[in-house]
Amino acid sequence: MYTLTTFRAVPSFAIGHVRELRVRWALEEAGLSYQVRTIGGEDQNTSRYRAQQPFGQVPVLHDGDFPIFESGAILLHLGSKEPGLLPTDPAAREQAVMWMFAALNSVEPHTGALAELIYFAAGEAWAAGARPGLEDRSLKRLASIDAWLSGREYLAGTFSVADILMTTVLRQLDGTGMVERFPTLAAYRQRCMARPAFRKALADHVAHFSATA
Amino acid sequence: MYTLTTFRAVPSFAIGHVRELRVRWALEEAGLSYQVRTIGGEDQNTSRYRAQQPFGQVPVLHDGDFPIFESGAILLHLGSKEPGLLPTDPAAREQAVMWMFAALNSVEPHTGALAELIYFAAGEAWAAGARPGLEDRSLKRLASIDAWLSGREYLAGTFSVADILMTTVLRQLDGTGMVERFPTLAAYRQRCMARPAFRKALADHVAHFSATA
Repeated sequence: MYTLTTFRAVPSFAIGHVRELRVRWALEEAGLSYQVRTIGGEDQNTSRYRAQQPFGQVPVLHDGDFPIFESGAILLHLGSKEPGLLPTDPAAREQAVMWMFAALNSVEPHTGALAELIYFAAGEAWAAGARPGLEDRSLKRLASIDAWLSGREYLAGTFSVADILMTTVLRQLDGTGMVERFPTLAAYRQRCMARPAFRKALADHVAHFSATA
Repeated sequence: MYTLTTFRAVPSFAIGHVRELRVRWALEEAGLSYQVRTIGGEDQNTSRYRAQQPFGQVPVLHDGDFPIFESGAILLHLGSKEPGLLPTDPAAREQAVMWMFAALNSVEPHTGALAELIYFAAGEAWAAGARPGLEDRSLKRLASIDAWLSGREYLAGTFSVADILMTTVLRQLDGTGMVERFPTLAAYRQRCMARPAFRKALADHVAHFSATA
């Protein structure tokens, strides 16, 4: 049995973007049911919760009694034991793992920094000066992914948890028009978001947070 | 046979911090020899190189003929097949993988953004305004890791590739005095850097780039 730990509530602008969505999506792709457990601000700094999630963040996924933190580690854990989440061919499987790390370490640091500026610092005097450099760094990575995807349906050929990570990273740029400048990349993002498992996971995610907003 | 692809040359301030150091360190920990192949700016955008490294960056590690990109994926690949890089106990091994992702996705986005500001934008008018927020985000993560390390020698108990990633991430803050504010964390960083494999890898890294600087 899987148990997803997520926040009880988040600010409305964060609905649709909390990283627990990645875990819901992977569980739906594998056709797995799961329980949901919630935490509030009062839990984030307790030693009990920090033993499961050292940064006090979400998501945590319990596989039985065993807690896993970091969305990337959770998706790798699920991909290693559940069907449909990583390619079966060994070379393609390794390539999917490379793209998992690429989404989280070569792309998200840049898209996340830009999103952070837009959501948390837009009114600051220095934000206008910082923004062009951040946009430039994101655009460089988007161009590289766009080129890679030419002739490929998904990052490692067939759908994998790497695509879950990359799609949720790309969605951090929603509203900026940046992904839309790259037709192959924009079509890929749409293709991933059209998957029934994504639509179900997003609906459940939105329903969870809307109920507590 | 392993072959590490790295840059032929980098600016002097980057010596000691290019991510290929992570791979050299892991190879030394496992007692493995390797060849070094170099690329220059003229190679970074070729379709031949992009097929190995879609962002035109380094490192790439070839395991025989098979190319692996992303330092995290390379270290996971090595950890999965070579001795001494991941705990043998399954639960500790999973915990090491969680910490690999944590170093790269919960810590490096913040330490890297601060290092980027310091090295590339220190003279910009907006940098002074942006810096306190970036420092605050890094300090929060450092405090969390410091607390986790209380009573632990390494992140997952015994030494693993997670410690290689975390140490190189923490070194991005060298000169800021930030790690030094956390005694347990600072001692951990020193303990990792005192390992013979780190010292050998760093010496080879510095010798390589000093020869071409």
